[in-house]
Amino acid sequence: MAIREKVFNTIVSCFKRHGAETIDTPVFELKETLTGKYGEDSKLIYDLKDQGGELLSLRYDLTVPFARFLAMNKISNIKRYHIAKVYRRDNPAMTRGRYREFYQCDFDIAGHYDPMIPDAECLRIVSEILGELDLGDFHIKVNDRRILDGMFAVCGVPDDKFRTICSTVDKLDKMCWEDVKNEMVKEKGLSEEAADMIGQYVTVRLLEDPKMSQSKQACAGLSDMKQLFSYLELFQVTDKVVFDLSLARGLDYYTGVIYEAMLGPAGAEESLSVGSVAGGGRYDGLVGMFDPKGRAVPCVGVSIGVERIFSILEQKAEAEKVRTTEVQVLVASAQKNLLEERLRLVTELWNAGIKAESMFKKNPKLLSQLQHCEESGIPLVAILGEQELKNGMVKLRTVATREEVRDSCVCVCVCNSLIAIKSRQC
Amino acid sequence: MAIREKVFNTIVSCFKRHGAETIDTPVFELKETLTGKYGEDSKLIYDLKDQGGELLSLRYDLTVPFARFLAMNKISNIKRYHIAKVYRRDNPAMTRGRYREFYQCDFDIAGHYDPMIPDAECLRIVSEILGELDLGDFHIKVNDRRILDGMFAVCGVPDDKFRTICSTVDKLDKMCWEDVKNEMVKEKGLSEEAADMIGQYVTVRLLEDPKMSQSKQACAGLSDMKQLFSYLELFQVTDKVVFDLSLARGLDYYTGVIYEAMLGPAGAEESLSVGSVAGGGRYDGLVGMFDPKGRAVPCVGVSIGVERIFSILEQKAEAEKVRTTEVQVLVASAQKNLLEERLRLVTELWNAGIKAESMFKKNPKLLSQLQHCEESGIPLVAILGEQELKNGMVKLRTVATREEVRDSCVCVCVCNSLIAIKSRQC
Repeated sequence: MAIREKVFNTIVSCFKRHGAETIDTPVFELKETLTGKYGEDSKLIYDLKDQGGELLSLRYDLTVPFARFLAMNKISNIKRYHIAKVYRRDNPAMTRGRYREFYQCDFDIAGHYDPMIPDAECLRIVSEILGELDLGDFHIKVNDRRILDGMFAVCGVPDDKFRTICSTVDKLDKMCWEDVKNEMVKEKGLSEEAADMIGQYVTVRLLEDPKMSQSKQACAGLSDMKQLFSYLELFQVTDKVVFDLSLARGLDYYTGVIYEAMLGPAGAEESLSVGSVAGGGRYDGLVGMFDPKGRAVPCVGVSIGVERIFSILEQKAEAEKVRTTEVQVLVASAQKNLLEERLRLVTELWNAGIKAESMFKKNPKLLSQLQHCEESGIPLVAILGEQELKNGMVKLRTVATREEVRDSCVCVCVCNSLIAIKSRQC
Repeated sequence: MAIREKVFNTIVSCFKRHGAETIDTPVFELKETLTGKYGEDSKLIYDLKDQGGELLSLRYDLTVPFARFLAMNKISNIKRYHIAKVYRRDNPAMTRGRYREFYQCDFDIAGHYDPMIPDAECLRIVSEILGELDLGDFHIKVNDRRILDGMFAVCGVPDDKFRTICSTVDKLDKMCWEDVKNEMVKEKGLSEEAADMIGQYVTVRLLEDPKMSQSKQACAGLSDMKQLFSYLELFQVTDKVVFDLSLARGLDYYTGVIYEAMLGPAGAEESLSVGSVAGGGRYDGLVGMFDPKGRAVPCVGVSIGVERIFSILEQKAEAEKVRTTEVQVLVASAQKNLLEERLRLVTELWNAGIKAESMFKKNPKLLSQLQHCEESGIPLVAILGEQELKNGMVKLRTVATREEVRDSCVCVCVCNSLIAIKSRQC
C-alpha cells in the first residue's frame, strides 16, 4: 500500500496538472447498462444476486459508467479522472498483476472540440506518467479504428464481422500470425483470402497501398493520424509514440484513435512479459447509447494499468525496506512509571501536528522501544527519564546512531512539569 | 468530490499522525465470513449471484474484513486505517447522508496491550478529526458492553437475550422509552419487570447502585471506565467525552468500551438530526472467530461516518463556489492561428510542473477563454498575441482584475520562438 500510494500520487498530480476534476460512481451499475458494451468479454461481468429491486452488476471498467454519468447528468464537456476498482471474472495471474478486482486510473476528455487536440493530450499524459514513475524505457503504439475498418473493408471482411475480426487482430501481441489467421478463418468464418490480405497489411504495414486510398474511412483516419503527430511534436512526445497498424484493442466501443503503452523500447520482445501498462482511445458513440434522445458526446480517454505497474515496483522494492508508517518520533521512557509523562508528551506532539507514537505498555523496556523504532523505521526517539524530567529536559536521539540530536527541527522543552514542543527552523 | 477530498485529507493526516499504516481488502468477502457477525442487520447484506465458484457478498463494514485479514495473515499487532466503501441494502435517506453504498474511514489498533491506552487513543482521534473538520460543537458518548451486560444480568435478562435487548436499548436515541420498552416486552419477550428495571438504570443512570456492584462484569467495566478517563485527561479530551449508560451500539461483536460521537453539545436535542458521525469500540473476540485455532487478537477501533459529514459540509458549501480543478493558468490567445504557440507554451508549463490548460479549439474567442477561467476559477491567464510573440513576451494577467501580473512567481519568457517558463521566488 505504501508503494501504491506513491504511484497514485504521481498519477493524480499529473491528472490535476492537466486540469482534470474527479468524479465517483457506484461500484455497481444496472445490469442493462453494461450489456452489449464489451463484446466477447461480457461473460466476465460479475452479477449481484436478485434480492428484490433492480438487477445489478459490478462495473467492468470506468468508461461505461462515465458515459452513463454524462448522459444522465446531461454533461456535454468535462475533463475528469477517476481512480477506482473494477471487476472481471477472469483467470487471475498474480505475478503479472492480473486480478479479478483491480484498480483503474482513468483520464477522459468529453466534449465537441477540434480534432486530435484532446487525443494528443491523452498521449502526452501517458508519457508524463510512465516517465515520472521511472519504469525504464517505454513506447506507445497508436492506430485508428477507422484505418482498421477501412482495411477490413478493402480486404473484403463483411461489415458485421468488423468488431469480432478486430478483437482477433488484437491478439497479435500474444499469438503468432498463423494462430490469429486460424481463429479468423476457422472460428470466425472469414475467407482465407481476406485473412491473408489482412495479414499482408498488418505484418508488412502497407499503408501507402493504392487500395487503402479508396477507403474514405481509412483516409480520414490517416489524415487525422498526421494531424495527431503534428500535435504530439508540439507536446514533445513523438520519440515515445509509434504508429502500429496491428494494434486493434479488444473493446467494442472505440471509434477513432486507439493506443496502448508498453514497457521496453519499440520492437523489443521482452516487453511482452508485462504486456500493456496503459491503453485507451476515442469513443464517440458511447454516451449517445445512454441518452434517451441519442445525443452524442465525443470522448477520448486513457486508462493506466496500475496493477502491472505495482507488481513491477513491488518487485523492485523487495531489496530495499519500504516504510509503511510515517511516524517521526517515538516517545519512550528509560525508567518505570513514566506512562503519564509519555502520554502527556505524545499529546503535545500531536497538538503540534507531529507524527508521534508511544508504546501501549505501562512499563516497556527501553530496548523493546528502540527495536520498535528500528523495525518500523522511526528516525527519532524522545527518551524520558526521571533525571531529565527533574531538569525539565527530554533527550532526543537519532535511532540509527543513538546520538543525541542537538540541531533538530523539533525542540522539546519540559518546564514546570508542563511539556511543550516547539518547531523551529533548521 | 472536491469537498470529499479535503475531508479525506484531514482524516488521513490524523491517522498518519497517530502512526497508522493502511491496508486494502477486496470489496467482496466469502459469504460465510460475514454470516453471524452483524446480528439483526445481516438481512441488509448484498450477495453476489452464484456464477460458479465461491459464494460472495459485498462487505458490510471494514471491521469484519479487518479481523479476517488479521487471522489469515497471522498478524497479532498492527495500527491500521482503511478508507473504503461498504454496502447495505437499507432504505437510503439522501439528505441525511444515508446511502446503500457509502464510505467508512476506519482506524483500529490490534494487539495485546495494557488496558484502555489504545481505547483512549481512539477517542483522542475522533476528537482531533471532528475538531479539525470544523463542524461546530460535538461530544462523544462512551459506555462499556460489560457494564451493560452486568446491568442486564442484575435486571434479570436471560443470557441469550443480552445482544437482542442491547440492540433495542441502542434505539433510545431515535425512539422514546415507552416504544423501546414495548419492543423489549412485546417483540422480544422480556418480562415487564426486567424492562422497567433497565429503564430505571438507563434513564436515571443508577451507577452507584448496590446491585450493580454485585456484578463482576459491571465492576470490571466501571473500573476500566475510570482508567479510561484518566488517560483521556492526559490526552486533553475529557471536555468532549461523556459517560452514557444508555449507549448500546447495534453490532454484536463489541466486548468492552463502546462510543459514539454526536454533533452539538452534550444533551442537546438538535444533534439528533444528523445522528452519530463516528462510532466504535472494543471487539476482542472477532479475530479469534476466523483463526482455525481460535487465537484471540484484542482490537479496538473507530469508524468515521464521513457521508454525514459530507452532507453537512456540502450544505455549508452551497453558498460559496467550490473549485473542482486546480488549474493555475490558462494559456490563451488574442488572435487567430496561434494554436501551435499555445500548445508549445502549455507543454513548457507542464514540463515545469505547473497546472495549466489551453482550450481544445483552433481559434477560440478571447472572451470565451476568459469566461472559462471565471467559470472554473482559474486565477491567471497567459495571453499570446502576435505583437507579444514578436517581442518575445507573453502577458500574464490576473483573471479577476484583468490586470497584468508583474510580480508573479511564474515568469514567462519567449525568446527566438522558443518559449520557456522559469519559476522564480517571490
